[in-house]
Amino acid sequence: MDPRIREHAEIIANHSVDLQAGDNVVIRAPPAAEDLVVALHEVVGAHDANPLALTSNSRFERAYMRAGEEFETPEHHLALIEETDVYIAVRADTNVTETSDVDPETNAARSQAAQPILGERLSKRWCLTQYPAPANAQLAEMSTEAYAEFVYDAIVKDWGAVRDHQAQMAEILDPADEVRIVSGDTTDVRMRVDGNPTLNDYGEKNLPGGEVFTAPVRDSVEGEVLFDKPLYHQGREVTGVHLRFEGGEVVEHSAEKNEAVLTEVLDTDDGARYLGELGIGMNRDIDQFTYNMLFDEKMGDTVHMAVGRAYEDTVGEANERNESAVHVDMIVDMSEDSYIEVDGERVQEDGRFVFEE
Amino acid sequence: MDPRIREHAEIIANHSVDLQAGDNVVIRAPPAAEDLVVALHEVVGAHDANPLALTSNSRFERAYMRAGEEFETPEHHLALIEETDVYIAVRADTNVTETSDVDPETNAARSQAAQPILGERLSKRWCLTQYPAPANAQLAEMSTEAYAEFVYDAIVKDWGAVRDHQAQMAEILDPADEVRIVSGDTTDVRMRVDGNPTLNDYGEKNLPGGEVFTAPVRDSVEGEVLFDKPLYHQGREVTGVHLRFEGGEVVEHSAEKNEAVLTEVLDTDDGARYLGELGIGMNRDIDQFTYNMLFDEKMGDTVHMAVGRAYEDTVGEANERNESAVHVDMIVDMSEDSYIEVDGERVQEDGRFVFEE
Repeated sequence: MDPRIREHAEIIANHSVDLQAGDNVVIRAPPAAEDLVVALHEVVGAHDANPLALTSNSRFERAYMRAGEEFETPEHHLALIEETDVYIAVRADTNVTETSDVDPETNAARSQAAQPILGERLSKRWCLTQYPAPANAQLAEMSTEAYAEFVYDAIVKDWGAVRDHQAQMAEILDPADEVRIVSGDTTDVRMRVDGNPTLNDYGEKNLPGGEVFTAPVRDSVEGEVLFDKPLYHQGREVTGVHLRFEGGEVVEHSAEKNEAVLTEVLDTDDGARYLGELGIGMNRDIDQFTYNMLFDEKMGDTVHMAVGRAYEDTVGEANERNESAVHVDMIVDMSEDSYIEVDGERVQEDGRFVFEE
Repeated sequence: MDPRIREHAEIIANHSVDLQAGDNVVIRAPPAAEDLVVALHEVVGAHDANPLALTSNSRFERAYMRAGEEFETPEHHLALIEETDVYIAVRADTNVTETSDVDPETNAARSQAAQPILGERLSKRWCLTQYPAPANAQLAEMSTEAYAEFVYDAIVKDWGAVRDHQAQMAEILDPADEVRIVSGDTTDVRMRVDGNPTLNDYGEKNLPGGEVFTAPVRDSVEGEVLFDKPLYHQGREVTGVHLRFEGGEVVEHSAEKNEAVLTEVLDTDDGARYLGELGIGMNRDIDQFTYNMLFDEKMGDTVHMAVGRAYEDTVGEANERNESAVHVDMIVDMSEDSYIEVDGERVQEDGRFVFEE
């Protein structure tokens, strides 16, 4: 077995989920991730914890959703998660478009029925990670070997050092009132963040981690943004997304490709036209876009903004939390002709932070 | 997908487990059985039932058992099964000797910890079946194609007709007092079965089914048996097993190959030297030995006897149930120079039943 797979498993157990003796552990993974799941069983055994392996397989999901008419919350699955201490979800695709011929409404009904399970899972110690499967390499337009190199570079690292490095940015953003993002002559947007906590993501719930993020104050966003990186939503690519904000709301939008998909997202509900997240990508080992938001949003020298739902932990008590059925991240490249201003001071310019000078 | 796979899934759902709308269903299968699990998700969806896929993978088990020191009952797994209505277990191996380098005591400790889960599972509507994976074909010394033909011939059939055919033998055995099995000059054994119910297995809990079975009265077995077919116990083959019974107990035993394994089985505990089952194999589509007891014990024109634990349902209230940690089946070929006598009447001769004349 590739030794990086065992290192990956050790990081998940010892860093991400802080595995303890006696923990009831669920490992949910597709067949393509078999080697990582073997390595996870080794570490779970070595910790005297109790593993149960669930299969994640988009062929099963497709077959079930196309055949079914009524979807209810599976009570046995919920009972399992209630008694679970640690939930490790591994992504590894065999065909990323496997559910492309499932009716979107059916998909939504199935997701809706599964909501209580997701909610319960998020209350546990959990980690979402990636195994470098061929179909994910294909989506990234890379060889499987090169993609594996990319994945392990992003994941197998000293996360304590990452925490300390990123803390410098979190300490700037957390007490701040206002943030301004400028890139070329296409992006200039301001938003208030006062009262909203800033979180430091150093590879716990997401592996890879590598971002510092908060929520904008709901009605405070003003200006316009051109998102340089493509957005991949429900199997469809949207490029050249341009948004204009007034009073927090998206009042104008356009896209070069698949604008209708963007319109559909923004029309989901009231909250879908407001920002739920501002994130600063700081993982410089993620040096290319791979159509996988678990990696893309942490790319070094980028910022991302998500329309839709804000995370609870990022909204202070005095502020309103933006609610929506969607949370769609979009990315701006900040590596050239760009800067981030916090309360009038430039804290990043062309990808270089003030604390790196 | 091979159309026989969908037929197999339909039989499991509609015949074996009688799937109902709203049922909480667990499907436990190895990666090698992926196509059957896809087909099962289709039928579960079509019934508006709720599927959850568990991974059975001997690489995971090996990794966990070799790394672990303490094994406890996983409470989350138990909670899952308690809320489950239907449990479908699929066998399909990638390497049947995958756990051959796990210490037998470790294996036993792990099994012991899992006992409450097994007990709970057996209280549900359940089915154990086989997918024709290459490693199982290899064990049977067959090509994968020929093995698939063999598996589907044994499984995809009219189980209502099987039930009616086998009922004729069950109706002979159920009210009987004594059975005598004679084969060549090497097997002549008598046992009482009065008071013990005879069960008709027509593809419900085991798929394939195809046997009629009961428990001998514990102390009544007298005579000797040469088991023609090899026994495959914990990855080791035992051939030419010869047993002599007095007062129900095995008082002499020998084997041509791996006699020590046989001795180990018989020395497990007191009950391991007494018979727990007498079964009559009636599935003539199972026409060869494949080192897989799920099939072998149902082979047409055979009888099998198991040393060790008797099934509860096969022991009447007035009789003592033989208890043991083991239940090891062994097979006698009855196709030539052999007969079964029930209360002094020949009911089968050279594989032909009286009701077939």
